Amino acid sequence: MTTSPETTPDPAETRWLSPEEQRVWRSFLRMQKELDAQLSRQMQTESELSMADFSVLVVLTDVPEGQARVLELARELQWEKSRLSHHLTRMVKRDLIARAECESDGRGSYVVITDAGRQAIRSAAPRHVELVRKLFFDPLGPEQLAHLGEISGRILGAMEGCPDALSDS
Amino acid sequence: MTTSPETTPDPAETRWLSPEEQRVWRSFLRMQKELDAQLSRQMQTESELSMADFSVLVVLTDVPEGQARVLELARELQWEKSRLSHHLTRMVKRDLIARAECESDGRGSYVVITDAGRQAIRSAAPRHVELVRKLFFDPLGPEQLAHLGEISGRILGAMEGCPDALSDS
Repeated sequence: MTTSPETTPDPAETRWLSPEEQRVWRSFLRMQKELDAQLSRQMQTESELSMADFSVLVVLTDVPEGQARVLELARELQWEKSRLSHHLTRMVKRDLIARAECESDGRGSYVVITDAGRQAIRSAAPRHVELVRKLFFDPLGPEQLAHLGEISGRILGAMEGCPDALSDS
Repeated sequence: MTTSPETTPDPAETRWLSPEEQRVWRSFLRMQKELDAQLSRQMQTESELSMADFSVLVVLTDVPEGQARVLELARELQWEKSRLSHHLTRMVKRDLIARAECESDGRGSYVVITDAGRQAIRSAAPRHVELVRKLFFDPLGPEQLAHLGEISGRILGAMEGCPDALSDS
């Protein structure tokens, strides 16, 4: 059996999901979609940030200088470069971040969080964390958290071992 | 402690995540982001569909007549109505779906999958399923699948019990 892009796969050879696998897969997809929708909705209505803005600012506040290369952001956020670039432009206009060129090392431009950006994430974070707790942590016991940590680790490991995974940036 | 939108939360009262909780949360976010990025990339490069097209077609092929109300699609996919509406218009232009008005019952318009839409999803599905298997099912054992099923169910349950969850459509 092959799944390489050069050949047309034979549906008769496809390892289709069993009904139980399909149930788990769909409930996982639904859970992540609704979690994401809820968190986005709250962020949008109760702060001046979108979830996309928040994600960018989280990456920038994670590093000491508050700055990161655009390429690092693209890899961290797993966004296509054109989407990221448009989004960063809008965030610059809103004074949440600023661009900082660094021609000398030839490794592309930086963005840096502004004071207004720090203020915005500080003000949005408490409600966001409360909702993450309510929807994600409160329903799970310590065992389930440990299971989920292991599950995420295994799936991430499988992607890192996959030839075209994580390699486009 | 309150998280209601009317009051400004006091950061000192926020139940911030512990380092271990933060680790689990971030690894979960990263796992779903990269899984989604990988599946989207494959769909885009190896079929004529985007992941968004595919998701719409999955909903339509799940029902006997191949048709659904736009409002049902919005709820199922958890997309904002304007995003969905623009996307459906593009899919109609590509002849993957058709619009079917149903003024008589006053409950809004339908979309229906076309023969070309059925052909497109049939042709994209085998490779998609293979990648889902490789990245999601193969790394997990039966116990972990059972755990994940339970975890998704609990989180979905928490969202259904949450006043502003799942109620905007």
